[in-house]
Amino acid sequence: MTETHFVTGGAGFIGSNLVDRLLDCGRKVVVYDNFSTGRKVFLKRALSNPNFLLWEDDLLDLDAVTRTMSTAPIDMVWHLAANADVRFGLDHPRKDLEQNTIVTHNVLEAMRANNIQKIAFSSTGSVYGEPSLHPTPEDAPFPIQTSLYGASKLACEALIQAYCEGFGFVGYIFRFVSALGERYTHGHVFDFCRKLLDNPDELHILGDGRQRKSYMYVHDCIDAMLLAVEKCYNKASVFNLGVDGYVEVNDSMRVITERMGVRPKLTYAGGERGWVGDSPFIWLDVARIRSLGWKPNVSILDGVIKTLDWLLENKWVFANDCHE
Amino acid sequence: MTETHFVTGGAGFIGSNLVDRLLDCGRKVVVYDNFSTGRKVFLKRALSNPNFLLWEDDLLDLDAVTRTMSTAPIDMVWHLAANADVRFGLDHPRKDLEQNTIVTHNVLEAMRANNIQKIAFSSTGSVYGEPSLHPTPEDAPFPIQTSLYGASKLACEALIQAYCEGFGFVGYIFRFVSALGERYTHGHVFDFCRKLLDNPDELHILGDGRQRKSYMYVHDCIDAMLLAVEKCYNKASVFNLGVDGYVEVNDSMRVITERMGVRPKLTYAGGERGWVGDSPFIWLDVARIRSLGWKPNVSILDGVIKTLDWLLENKWVFANDCHE
Repeated sequence: MTETHFVTGGAGFIGSNLVDRLLDCGRKVVVYDNFSTGRKVFLKRALSNPNFLLWEDDLLDLDAVTRTMSTAPIDMVWHLAANADVRFGLDHPRKDLEQNTIVTHNVLEAMRANNIQKIAFSSTGSVYGEPSLHPTPEDAPFPIQTSLYGASKLACEALIQAYCEGFGFVGYIFRFVSALGERYTHGHVFDFCRKLLDNPDELHILGDGRQRKSYMYVHDCIDAMLLAVEKCYNKASVFNLGVDGYVEVNDSMRVITERMGVRPKLTYAGGERGWVGDSPFIWLDVARIRSLGWKPNVSILDGVIKTLDWLLENKWVFANDCHE
Repeated sequence: MTETHFVTGGAGFIGSNLVDRLLDCGRKVVVYDNFSTGRKVFLKRALSNPNFLLWEDDLLDLDAVTRTMSTAPIDMVWHLAANADVRFGLDHPRKDLEQNTIVTHNVLEAMRANNIQKIAFSSTGSVYGEPSLHPTPEDAPFPIQTSLYGASKLACEALIQAYCEGFGFVGYIFRFVSALGERYTHGHVFDFCRKLLDNPDELHILGDGRQRKSYMYVHDCIDAMLLAVEKCYNKASVFNLGVDGYVEVNDSMRVITERMGVRPKLTYAGGERGWVGDSPFIWLDVARIRSLGWKPNVSILDGVIKTLDWLLENKWVFANDCHE
């Protein structure tokens, strides 16, 4: 029988790429998205597929999501909807609590009401705060949180784990480094590209540009998630998802300016961190997901180039920027 | 100038003992409690002190708590209000989210609105789930949550840490083992005593009675918290609070039955755990708080006896039991 997958945030960057992949694999897919940051155009291909169903509603509405999950027999939930904006958390401290923690609780309760027990969740390497170990493994020392975003995602992880123990759920928690690729709509490549299209002669860089970050190509990320869900049957599995290295923000900047053929004057905000709560060094140990047979196919800087090329071919994404 | 301390859950077991101690030290104390589990009689001594003020209201009401914190210049907040019932979490999965996570967010927001930046928080050893290391240190490997209670307390810790990093708060996070002592109103000593008063000939024990647990006398716990707040000025400090050992539930049962002069027939529910999400072995490494000069004065079994003696002198607490 054809499996039906329920994808929250399915109109977003990673969500919509996952949806296309699931449909290509012959799955039925139900997307639930409030289009706060998702884009309907990302679902253009999906919308022409008879196995696809789109619900536009809000996850803060527990009744609505419970009802929606009852309209079809759902085999598993991919909970990707989130406030993914780590940088501006301090401007609206309730947003991460509501859009991440409370929403995740609602998803779990809606699943419980509908007897659905399998959930995959997009967490973040930000839950490691500023780790003492690099690359950082899943069982790193108990971290101290440094951002409201990380704090809220940790709360979601904890809720999912408690539902696994208490209600027999099977959970897959993926701690991502930042993803890059087609349909990417926020982050440093987006910011740099937008700024350089506005003014190719100047580029202001947050922090000192020496922040070391790991980035993963979105299709490598989706490969990893699909593999983990296929191969693991533990109560609650946690996987780091990332690549075997890191670059400095300056490295990425050089690739971007070269590809765009611009030579901007660089200015730096200074300091080790791009903003309060930014981790100056993100590099995850991905031995656990690699042990299942996965490996990334696209290097960090190739991912930057693919992302940039997509942005330059889809400049409309800059017109309706979601930053508040 | 006399310091003013704001104590949420100040009518509870640990809260009311802390309130008396703070007043004895000459502090002004404002208690905010909704009396969902707190008892006004625990504040009898405090209420006769001119330095004491009692507000009866709910922490879910952000406006109320924000307004209350604005009525006096507050130097620090002791956030002890919580749903402390780890055992029945699965019966009402929203309770821990609301009473612990959301309430903590409200306390932090009310503090921010009133420019109060110092917070001490009663967390729990339950955040370690079922740890691989015993005794468990504060920087144990990143845990997997096994209860909604632990998950919600971890979410609170994470929020406080993020406010420390983002808004310059100073936070003291105390991961307690279970506390014992005067005004104790839930937990295994309470349950055993109540059952044996009802029927001294039989005692049913959850699990196999071999669960290993650490218990701390409430005044030792308060000593430790006051010392940490006096001596530490870090952004976000985490301290385990407990004693240097553990007992089996059976050991405690023997002390209780002997003290009560009863010889009940014992029956066991069986299994390693008292209930789903119960940790069969709780023993925290308290080297960090000891390094500040603290040590516990009351052993686990002496604490059990003190608690039992208090319960037997105050049998009225059984009349209005808060278990739902």
